[in-house]
Amino acid sequence: MTEKYVYSFDEGDKSMKKLLGGKGANLAEMTTLGIPVPPGFTVTTEACAKYYELGQKYPEGVFEEVREHVKKVEEKMGAVLGGENPLLLSVRSGAAVSMPGMMDTVLNLGLNDKTVQNLIDKTGNERFALDSYRRFIQMFGDVVMGVAHHDFENALEKVKETKGVEFDTDLTAEDLREVISEYKKVVQESAGKMFPEDPFEQLKLSIDAVFSSWNNKRAITYRKLNDIKGLVGTAVNVQAMVFGNMGETSGTGVCFTRDPSTGENVFYGEYLMNAQGEDVVAGIRTPKPISQLEEVMPECYAQLVKIYQDLEKHYKDMQDMEFTIQDGVLYILQTRSGKRTAPAAVRMAVEMVDEGLIDKETALLRVDPNALNQLLHKQLDTIAKDKAEVIAKGLPASPGAAVGKIAFTAERAHEMAEAGETVVLVRTETSPEDIQGMNASQGILTSRGGMTSHAAVVARGMGKCCICGCSDAVIDESSKKLQIKDKTFTEGDWITMDGSAGEVFADKIPVKDPELSGSFGTLIGWADEFRTLKIRTNAETPHDSEVAKGFGAEGIGLCRTEHMFFEGDRVKAVREMILSEDVEGRKKALAKLLPMQKGDFKGIFEVMKGLPVTIRLLDPPLHEFLPHTDAEIKSLAEEMGVTFEKLKEKVDSLHELNPMLGHRGCRLVVTYPEIAEMQTRAIFEAACELAKDGQDIVPEVMIPLVGHMNEFVFNKKIVVETAEKVMEEQGTKLKYMVGTMIEVPRGALTADDIAKEAEFFSFGTNDLTQMTFGFSRDDVGSFVPEYVEQNILENDPFQALDQSGVGQLVKMAVEKGKSSRPDIKLGICGEHGGEPSSIDFCHRVGLDYVSCSPFRVPIARLAAAHAALKNK
Amino acid sequence: MTEKYVYSFDEGDKSMKKLLGGKGANLAEMTTLGIPVPPGFTVTTEACAKYYELGQKYPEGVFEEVREHVKKVEEKMGAVLGGENPLLLSVRSGAAVSMPGMMDTVLNLGLNDKTVQNLIDKTGNERFALDSYRRFIQMFGDVVMGVAHHDFENALEKVKETKGVEFDTDLTAEDLREVISEYKKVVQESAGKMFPEDPFEQLKLSIDAVFSSWNNKRAITYRKLNDIKGLVGTAVNVQAMVFGNMGETSGTGVCFTRDPSTGENVFYGEYLMNAQGEDVVAGIRTPKPISQLEEVMPECYAQLVKIYQDLEKHYKDMQDMEFTIQDGVLYILQTRSGKRTAPAAVRMAVEMVDEGLIDKETALLRVDPNALNQLLHKQLDTIAKDKAEVIAKGLPASPGAAVGKIAFTAERAHEMAEAGETVVLVRTETSPEDIQGMNASQGILTSRGGMTSHAAVVARGMGKCCICGCSDAVIDESSKKLQIKDKTFTEGDWITMDGSAGEVFADKIPVKDPELSGSFGTLIGWADEFRTLKIRTNAETPHDSEVAKGFGAEGIGLCRTEHMFFEGDRVKAVREMILSEDVEGRKKALAKLLPMQKGDFKGIFEVMKGLPVTIRLLDPPLHEFLPHTDAEIKSLAEEMGVTFEKLKEKVDSLHELNPMLGHRGCRLVVTYPEIAEMQTRAIFEAACELAKDGQDIVPEVMIPLVGHMNEFVFNKKIVVETAEKVMEEQGTKLKYMVGTMIEVPRGALTADDIAKEAEFFSFGTNDLTQMTFGFSRDDVGSFVPEYVEQNILENDPFQALDQSGVGQLVKMAVEKGKSSRPDIKLGICGEHGGEPSSIDFCHRVGLDYVSCSPFRVPIARLAAAHAALKNK
Repeated sequence: MTEKYVYSFDEGDKSMKKLLGGKGANLAEMTTLGIPVPPGFTVTTEACAKYYELGQKYPEGVFEEVREHVKKVEEKMGAVLGGENPLLLSVRSGAAVSMPGMMDTVLNLGLNDKTVQNLIDKTGNERFALDSYRRFIQMFGDVVMGVAHHDFENALEKVKETKGVEFDTDLTAEDLREVISEYKKVVQESAGKMFPEDPFEQLKLSIDAVFSSWNNKRAITYRKLNDIKGLVGTAVNVQAMVFGNMGETSGTGVCFTRDPSTGENVFYGEYLMNAQGEDVVAGIRTPKPISQLEEVMPECYAQLVKIYQDLEKHYKDMQDMEFTIQDGVLYILQTRSGKRTAPAAVRMAVEMVDEGLIDKETALLRVDPNALNQLLHKQLDTIAKDKAEVIAKGLPASPGAAVGKIAFTAERAHEMAEAGETVVLVRTETSPEDIQGMNASQGILTSRGGMTSHAAVVARGMGKCCICGCSDAVIDESSKKLQIKDKTFTEGDWITMDGSAGEVFADKIPVKDPELSGSFGTLIGWADEFRTLKIRTNAETPHDSEVAKGFGAEGIGLCRTEHMFFEGDRVKAVREMILSEDVEGRKKALAKLLPMQKGDFKGIFEVMKGLPVTIRLLDPPLHEFLPHTDAEIKSLAEEMGVTFEKLKEKVDSLHELNPMLGHRGCRLVVTYPEIAEMQTRAIFEAACELAKDGQDIVPEVMIPLVGHMNEFVFNKKIVVETAEKVMEEQGTKLKYMVGTMIEVPRGALTADDIAKEAEFFSFGTNDLTQMTFGFSRDDVGSFVPEYVEQNILENDPFQALDQSGVGQLVKMAVEKGKSSRPDIKLGICGEHGGEPSSIDFCHRVGLDYVSCSPFRVPIARLAAAHAALKNK
Repeated sequence: MTEKYVYSFDEGDKSMKKLLGGKGANLAEMTTLGIPVPPGFTVTTEACAKYYELGQKYPEGVFEEVREHVKKVEEKMGAVLGGENPLLLSVRSGAAVSMPGMMDTVLNLGLNDKTVQNLIDKTGNERFALDSYRRFIQMFGDVVMGVAHHDFENALEKVKETKGVEFDTDLTAEDLREVISEYKKVVQESAGKMFPEDPFEQLKLSIDAVFSSWNNKRAITYRKLNDIKGLVGTAVNVQAMVFGNMGETSGTGVCFTRDPSTGENVFYGEYLMNAQGEDVVAGIRTPKPISQLEEVMPECYAQLVKIYQDLEKHYKDMQDMEFTIQDGVLYILQTRSGKRTAPAAVRMAVEMVDEGLIDKETALLRVDPNALNQLLHKQLDTIAKDKAEVIAKGLPASPGAAVGKIAFTAERAHEMAEAGETVVLVRTETSPEDIQGMNASQGILTSRGGMTSHAAVVARGMGKCCICGCSDAVIDESSKKLQIKDKTFTEGDWITMDGSAGEVFADKIPVKDPELSGSFGTLIGWADEFRTLKIRTNAETPHDSEVAKGFGAEGIGLCRTEHMFFEGDRVKAVREMILSEDVEGRKKALAKLLPMQKGDFKGIFEVMKGLPVTIRLLDPPLHEFLPHTDAEIKSLAEEMGVTFEKLKEKVDSLHELNPMLGHRGCRLVVTYPEIAEMQTRAIFEAACELAKDGQDIVPEVMIPLVGHMNEFVFNKKIVVETAEKVMEEQGTKLKYMVGTMIEVPRGALTADDIAKEAEFFSFGTNDLTQMTFGFSRDDVGSFVPEYVEQNILENDPFQALDQSGVGQLVKMAVEKGKSSRPDIKLGICGEHGGEPSSIDFCHRVGLDYVSCSPFRVPIARLAAAHAALKNK
């Protein structure tokens, strides 16, 4: 018994994707549903697998099966391949997963010198028939016989030149005969073989070509890049051709069962009469709205409406359909789930639930969490934007739109904003000292730095538009000039940025506010019914906390206290501390900071009203608080009343070759315990005072950069002793937790030890990624783009968590942590906490929460629901 | 049935250390051997454990057992505790492992106002008896009753003042009676209790005190620091006192069964007649050589000789013994394995094998591999050194001695050496550009940097004396001045360094060459019979390779090609390459380097004659080859004929915030494949040419800094393609290997993937430690010393491999690597490859070889033998 390698469209259904490929299964499904699909058949993926098993030879009997199925198609169409009334075929590849890397399509198969005449005779349209023939030779020559595309183009051009015509459409039937003759010569010369006139030979070679394309380089690369595994081969779909260009009762069109850009539940699409599919796409003739078809061909239209309604009900999703009307007969050529904008996706998902078409789980899974980004930031007015010229492109570091007057320093940005201007901060790169100016600006544009540079990270945290690494922007901060190609901008000039696209525009473009439409709120509300991960936010001001809470944050996962040290006059006290010669001096300076820090924490606790707040003790190396150039040092020395030499010496002594791996985090506390004492005091005085007012505060104090249990123990002791002292002074007893960031590989490796003392872990995957890869995120710009281009890395690991490397450490730390402390609280506060694929990972390894910047909270809520649903 | 808690010395032996403690077991062993040991007994460690179980109370029956054993001692000594002929006792602690943190000793127990008189009567020596009594009160008051030592000192001083005497020994019997009376008052006042007159009360309290000292803070800390676990408590040894100060037929001494400083097989030691043990130690009277005892007390001497010979034969090791002669009767108070110098250890070990006393395994284990350091470098003449003044101390970064004239720049050092001077290079810190000058110098002194700074690492590699981080040395390179406290040195001044001690001297001190004595060679030869680890060396010149081979290196484990780029004029070509705008320019510059690199490799291959040579492709970031200050850039720009701006721009564009985590290693090759092409070509042209001369070369090409399999694949492809091309050109076919460093945590985590392509792994534990801890070894000076001091870290992890953190990654990579490629070749080339505890780890995880600097090769050979023997 030979196996069955070929299936008629009426023998399959959509469940047979693996065997028939996606396209074949859908064509079969529609056929079975009684939808008018041009008849055809599918050669299975197993035939393809067998073909490779046999060393690229047809399995026995396959082509005989093909011949039988061609006969059935001939019967259905009342036409014969190569016959008087010639049957023409299309041949398409189609794997179980859509793969643009493979051979696509051969159309009009079956034409030759004889059948083209039959076609002319039958249709009475000589030009149409000849043009179809020359297109077939070109397509077949290109994809089946490997003739270079431009060889055909050259031949065509030569004929056009001789005839003195400009457009293909101006070629007469006679001209086309000449083109056909030239094309055949091209095939002969280039492929060293005659163009095959026998239609079955054409079919055999085409199927052959589809099978071979399964293992061409593009297809292999595509499968590798998209991690497509477990497929045995591609199927081949052979289908009768129908023509929309056979006169005024023929036509073709594309339609959607709902509006793909708004999501509105209306029939949407366009068509052209007397045209082929490619004419709709090519844009030479302007297609008409689908509703007008009702007037032209009312019966076909009514049939189409019935079909679209049936198909949407059947597939329970918005469909993108292609149809052709041949001589008044409607054929559906394709149906598939349609692409849609983010607002449309949200609206359709919610409305389909209301309509009872789908359930909430399906609705949630229909919306890509990343796409929500579009809904969460100001946007440029689309129409105005389309008219404007993009003068430079950079990295889309933080989405949204910004329009403002240029400022070249953080101070000026602050001043201008205070004076009521809207400002865009333009700098080579930003540093922690620029925070205030960044906060005062609508957006930030830098010429250097990557997606995780200081500007990018801070801007995302602030939910502010930011474009980084815009290398076309030459910025001279001293002379206050921004040069972009031939355009020069000075302070106060207007500029517009689209952070989502990384595009820069001159002048002002109107901006729209984000629309948090009703559907959006509904959908995200549903997400909360399914997710098990809690969502927290990274915030260090009452304002950011408020915003995040509005977006649904259930606590603060990371409050970076160093950002507070730069505000206003505080940096002065910080510098005074750094320059102190002894503990007493440092304590005096820290005493000045205490009331301010306490105020910060009180503000945040009040906003969060009893939700958990994780506060990280000071993390950066101290030199970040000092200036670095001689000029800046000189000016600061004068301001502080110390000698230039003394300040310079301090700056030099704090200098580090690799500050990322230097004297920071919990290491600072070992040298300067008084810093942790002050910070702990501020936290607990704030919390105790609010507790007396009846608020329920459970501070979570987080020790950064722990790599060894003893470091944690040293730090924890100071925190606990200070906390107990403050609570005694205040006469209040609070619950509190002391835990650590896991961000140093050694911390993950020895998490079982650390968990003996730490009550929670929060994965600092930014630093963990830096150290696990050995990549400084400030410096990777010189090679990571090349890495992604060369496919050495699939993604920038600072954007999507590297699950196979860094993820191993996270998983290990989770397991080891739980082995020592089964109820340990586990979260993530790196940038990955707001990235959907990383959130899925966090769900799978069993974290309790993810924490992300305020504007990513809704994304994280949806992504967490996806994770819960996908990993049920 | 009550348990047995007390053992007479004649009831135990040396196998009972766990129960009787080390001291008790040895006393029992000697007793059993028939050696004259003053009688006594041991209260077991189990009694101590029970004591704690009961909440610091004596277990029932213990003191009754003690009383019985006291009776036996009384019988043996013919004296009675508290009696007419008073028995005096010593009480000492003694755990299974020696623990200086515990209570040590109470002597003369049993004295009180009555027995002191009996003692006077019996000995006729009033002063001796009274002095013993006052010493007892002081010791007992101090260690048992917690009276402060200085309270006794004050009382003593007061009496001495009143009497107008300077030395204790000048006090008369009458004076001593007054001291005793004062001492008792001190006890009463300070402890709030009377000094106990009852000898059994004294004994009970003393045993109590020993038990309590087991859990005092010092002892707990000591156990923690030395990782002493599993001990249940301390034993207490109670022994009859004997007196060497009872007249001219009494005496006391210390002796060794061989000379502990040379190892010569002679009886060695010193004694004093009419003296107590502490007199020998105190140095008030000069002891006499042991040989002279033969004349004074020939019988005792003969007995002592017999005993020392027996004891050495019995313990099969050189013994350090304490003896006392009381009234012509010899007693041995203690025997233990004696401390010895490195040369002595080696000589004894080898000679004892020759004598048939021990086997080779034991001999090898007797010598601490680290101690061999003393044998492998030039040393200062001990006598001259002892007379000289240490003017500054720094870190002992690389051992050995150096005497030379000061040079403040590498260029001057080179020039001076060329002119025939011996030079010491003195710099704030060194950089790769200084290599030539370092090579030309006898030693290197830096004011900054730690044990793994550039200067330290390179100097150790060169086997050159180096002192780093000598903060007392204020170096002004521009004015060519070295200031050490009040001394100023200028160029050409003589200076002497002891790199093993980190000591700096003014002027010249004579130097001795290392003595590679015959025993040393023999011992290391034996090591080779037992070790399974191969030993390779880190070397990049024919000279270093030669030295290492002389020391027994079996290949090169790490040849760092970047060091070659700094030699002579080469750096010019390197800079030309860096400044090139395009691939062509880079290739042109690289072509200039090719013949030089090829020469390097040829030289090394020729020395190594078929032994494996692992060559690492270029590792450091390119900016290391460019100057950094404006002045240097200006001068180089002139030299290269480019504008200052252009060079400055390049330097700025290559600048990295964290170069350690930057654009280096295999990442360079992704951007500039032509560098790897040139290096591979150089390796294979060299190897092919030698192969044609009949040499057997198997190059091992090593790709640095691999964190992802794709990086390795990218690099390997270039190496393989170039190698195949060169071999085809040369018409020669060589075996070769391509492998990688595992030095990035992600490399270890994904070693199974990488091993699919890599034929060998070499663990780069320097960088692996940096990234696993998040410690920049250039910057840890600001906190790691504090970490070690605060016991946060036991060791500097750059010296001894951190087995619990970094070691986990190594182990994981070994297992994963073998899972993909069972025959993968595994080695280590970080600095840890020459450190014994790390070598033991490497043996245990199953590496094939360790690679270390040439001068550590003998140490590694011995350490590898230790590892094999200890882990049998």
